[in-house]
Amino acid sequence: MDQAEVSALVDEVVEAWNSHDIPRYASCFAPDADFINVIGTWWRGRDEIEQNTGRLHSGPFQHTVLTLTLAGFKEIAPGIGVAHVSTLLQGHDASGPRRTTEPRPGIMTWTVSERDGGLEIVAGQNTDILSAPPPPATGT
Amino acid sequence: MDQAEVSALVDEVVEAWNSHDIPRYASCFAPDADFINVIGTWWRGRDEIEQNTGRLHSGPFQHTVLTLTLAGFKEIAPGIGVAHVSTLLQGHDASGPRRTTEPRPGIMTWTVSERDGGLEIVAGQNTDILSAPPPPATGT
Repeated sequence: MDQAEVSALVDEVVEAWNSHDIPRYASCFAPDADFINVIGTWWRGRDEIEQNTGRLHSGPFQHTVLTLTLAGFKEIAPGIGVAHVSTLLQGHDASGPRRTTEPRPGIMTWTVSERDGGLEIVAGQNTDILSAPPPPATGT
Repeated sequence: MDQAEVSALVDEVVEAWNSHDIPRYASCFAPDADFINVIGTWWRGRDEIEQNTGRLHSGPFQHTVLTLTLAGFKEIAPGIGVAHVSTLLQGHDASGPRRTTEPRPGIMTWTVSERDGGLEIVAGQNTDILSAPPPPATGT
């Protein structure tokens, strides 16, 4: 597994998302893939990922544009890797842990596996990047 | 890799956390492990995981009690597995995406690898489980 293969998977996910081609998006995942979204909901299997992503793209994500950047990658066994992917979601209705319409930066971990002709996501999790607030004021 | 090995790792993480033994906690991770916390901060390597977890246990997590439940597990290659672990954090100061002192349920993905005598976490990510809000009212 080399970084070019991981980058190709990142590109495929972005192109599928931004063309709102949900079957193409779902096909980036293994049939038994797990995905945890930004509010901690666990989708089990490619079918659940496809149904729920489709539901969102018919609603609050209808006009979204997703930008992904491969931020890190390591092969942990032959044909198995862990990738960290920086995300930026724009154009959404109020969504995410803060229910915001502002651009939402995030970070995903993908565990990926080789299959014929490329890689597939075996497990993924996405978290919005939120600033830690300052410590509380200590009074006057 | 079998489920008993994963359960042993879960138990070790819980015992280390709840006794606030941060070196013991950090030793559950591989030296080059990655961990994404609930606000999307990426800790790279066991040392960063240990420093940051220690900082939290000297502050808002000083009196925390963590409950973990192994919710799912699959071996994806010889000696490599993906575990999903349900979390419940209690006893903390205001923390998490909602800055709450209420108990915080969450879900983690761990990618784990065999090492001498057990398993270690190669990559982990934690997300608080938040309820999706109801759709906005449509007016009167």
